Amino acid sequence: MSTALLTDRYELTMLDAALRSGHAERRCMFETFARRLPQGRRYGVFAGGGRLLDAIEQFRFGDEELEWLRQERVVHDDTLEWLANYRFSGSIRAYREGEVYFPGSPVLEVEASFAEGVLLETLILSVLNYDTAIATAAARMVSAAAGRPLAEMGSRRVGERSAVAAARAAYIAGFGATSNLEAGRSWGVPTMGTAAHSFTLLYDSEREAFSAQLDAMGAGTTLLVDTFDVARAIDLAVELAGPELGAVRLDSGDLPVLVHEVRRQLDSLGATGTHITVTNDLDEYAISTLAAAPVDSYGVGTSLVTGSGSPAAGMVYKLVAHTDGDGWVPVGKRSAGKASVAGRKDAVRELSSGRARAEIVHVESDPEASVGRLLQVPLVVDGEIDEQWRGPAGVQAAREHRAMAVAELPRDAFRLSQGDPAIPTVYR
Amino acid sequence: MSTALLTDRYELTMLDAALRSGHAERRCMFETFARRLPQGRRYGVFAGGGRLLDAIEQFRFGDEELEWLRQERVVHDDTLEWLANYRFSGSIRAYREGEVYFPGSPVLEVEASFAEGVLLETLILSVLNYDTAIATAAARMVSAAAGRPLAEMGSRRVGERSAVAAARAAYIAGFGATSNLEAGRSWGVPTMGTAAHSFTLLYDSEREAFSAQLDAMGAGTTLLVDTFDVARAIDLAVELAGPELGAVRLDSGDLPVLVHEVRRQLDSLGATGTHITVTNDLDEYAISTLAAAPVDSYGVGTSLVTGSGSPAAGMVYKLVAHTDGDGWVPVGKRSAGKASVAGRKDAVRELSSGRARAEIVHVESDPEASVGRLLQVPLVVDGEIDEQWRGPAGVQAAREHRAMAVAELPRDAFRLSQGDPAIPTVYR
Repeated sequence: MSTALLTDRYELTMLDAALRSGHAERRCMFETFARRLPQGRRYGVFAGGGRLLDAIEQFRFGDEELEWLRQERVVHDDTLEWLANYRFSGSIRAYREGEVYFPGSPVLEVEASFAEGVLLETLILSVLNYDTAIATAAARMVSAAAGRPLAEMGSRRVGERSAVAAARAAYIAGFGATSNLEAGRSWGVPTMGTAAHSFTLLYDSEREAFSAQLDAMGAGTTLLVDTFDVARAIDLAVELAGPELGAVRLDSGDLPVLVHEVRRQLDSLGATGTHITVTNDLDEYAISTLAAAPVDSYGVGTSLVTGSGSPAAGMVYKLVAHTDGDGWVPVGKRSAGKASVAGRKDAVRELSSGRARAEIVHVESDPEASVGRLLQVPLVVDGEIDEQWRGPAGVQAAREHRAMAVAELPRDAFRLSQGDPAIPTVYR
Repeated sequence: MSTALLTDRYELTMLDAALRSGHAERRCMFETFARRLPQGRRYGVFAGGGRLLDAIEQFRFGDEELEWLRQERVVHDDTLEWLANYRFSGSIRAYREGEVYFPGSPVLEVEASFAEGVLLETLILSVLNYDTAIATAAARMVSAAAGRPLAEMGSRRVGERSAVAAARAAYIAGFGATSNLEAGRSWGVPTMGTAAHSFTLLYDSEREAFSAQLDAMGAGTTLLVDTFDVARAIDLAVELAGPELGAVRLDSGDLPVLVHEVRRQLDSLGATGTHITVTNDLDEYAISTLAAAPVDSYGVGTSLVTGSGSPAAGMVYKLVAHTDGDGWVPVGKRSAGKASVAGRKDAVRELSSGRARAEIVHVESDPEASVGRLLQVPLVVDGEIDEQWRGPAGVQAAREHRAMAVAELPRDAFRLSQGDPAIPTVYR
């Protein structure tokens, strides 16, 4: 399925004008970065890189796309011919998925002709802005959960394809599972889930419903116990499943109080190994207030897939340099409040005793002059996609990289309150 | 492309258990509704219905989906056979797209076997929660713009497929155009856009850039004038294009002040017919503060596609009745703070002198007893989709219906401040 029309019209009209003026083949450097982190957060988690590679591969103009563009007169006919042969032949360098980032971090750089680079702007930003917003929110929830497992279950609260991306981003950021089956199939994210209230209501009694679920899924399943009366449901659950019952799920009520009551009741029934999972409108703050409660795992929906208040990461895609025959010429706009830093950039995470100290952005200067970790890796070289970043293997690598990168951050980075970025961005 | 795995795992495990217990074929009524409107808004705009019909048609389990489910042992083998033959054969009744809704409005009802109905839960909610959130936010921006045209241009701030849905929902809610090409192709939404800052930066001077754009797009184009210095760019723009210049775009700065200056400058240059379009981080509040400024049109991005603070509409999908052989039995959960109203519902917009007075929800009672407009229409009857709600024609009809339904609302509905729903919901 082509992704070529998942694009703003102006990318094509700019191409059209540049082709006519003879500037379309000028070599250009486009940079993706965020001017700030979402609402006072202390670090961001970069995500979407692997997913973007699939989208770029599918960015081809087939007969249907070209015919529609012709009918709508979006561009001139010679531009349509150019589009028919389009295949990205440039290079892309980016932060690894799962890497943390800060204001001004050059998270993704496209080096290509203006024509090839400008066409990808919308698609690159759509993928990175959403996936990064989710990974950034998810990482805070993972911190707040302090080692307890988290499951993503927000598919129903976001567009049906974004739901898959959200599950993938949350997994990279440290969630352990998702409810979303497509995320399981496409990206290897472990899937979970047992039953909803409608299942209990289908039957003439809660007893019948629990029995049916236990029959199909075994005693290790998770029973949803808040359809009618929690205490009675728990009595019934342990009566039917025995103390081997895997878990009970609470999806309503005053959780910090309720969870203690449920734990006591389960223990008094001998179900000391039965877990308690909670899923009621959680976000990082609600998770944090449950730290002292005997919760075994969390399910997070709405607040995760909507970025917990910041549903888009605010990344932009800017032309920072082009060639004029003699070499690269840095360029940048001076728009009020939106100026960009011109020039090619290399980024280094400055480390001291393994702890991150600064985000060093070298502008047209040698990154080897800084001590630390080089942050950019090649994703595409002259049109050839590096396969290591793709598919489930890429997701797994990103998850591991995120754990490493987050572990380098100073302690202050994990405070939930609003504040400055955990480390400063320094241009050199 | 199958949509079958854009689904929470528990829909399939519930199906599995219900098939084993013999309850899967029980006739059920599922209802979609929102317990409240997003954050103090006074009305919602229902959207997504037509898009949902495509997604339901594509909800089929092919060999690839079944093989993955088998490998993962999500369900038993006999359930896989059942899924292989799945095709929705039930009925769906819903509010028309573009209809306004209130807390408790039964916006979409699925009547089917438990098996067939439960499987669609996640997909239905994903589509309706996103599209409705966008249409609801968009409608407020349309009110705030007070007749001036609005263009949706937020594709880069939301997942790449949700971007298409956002453009569609905004158009239904009264926006006039979108930057998103796929929304143009798939849904007939008019597309727009000319150039970004990168286009100006590609050239060795703003003069060259403007000349190239005018050469390709003609004097009627929109020139972006804030890359370096607005006043100089406007002088240049009118010098090159003449007073026939279509429009100038401002994407930064203190707009309420700047727009007046730009208008004066354009007029002084004789470009009295040249329009001013503004696109700098607008939402309904910023649009409202520009009411007295000589703006000709607005472009809205981030705040639109993220629902201006409410990126999900909060709709839920609940089992409200099932048959027991003698007829329908109302059912509902009693979970703390999340109780649902049991039973089949018919909705009427009570009208007096053409003005909406109340949302009457008849619960197992005759809707003919209320005076007003019946709100539900059949989308699917015994598995047959009604074609009139689909494709570009469906979108156009939804846009017109929205204009009618919004015009019925009391004046208070259009205040931007938080408040109660514009009309009460009354159960009868």
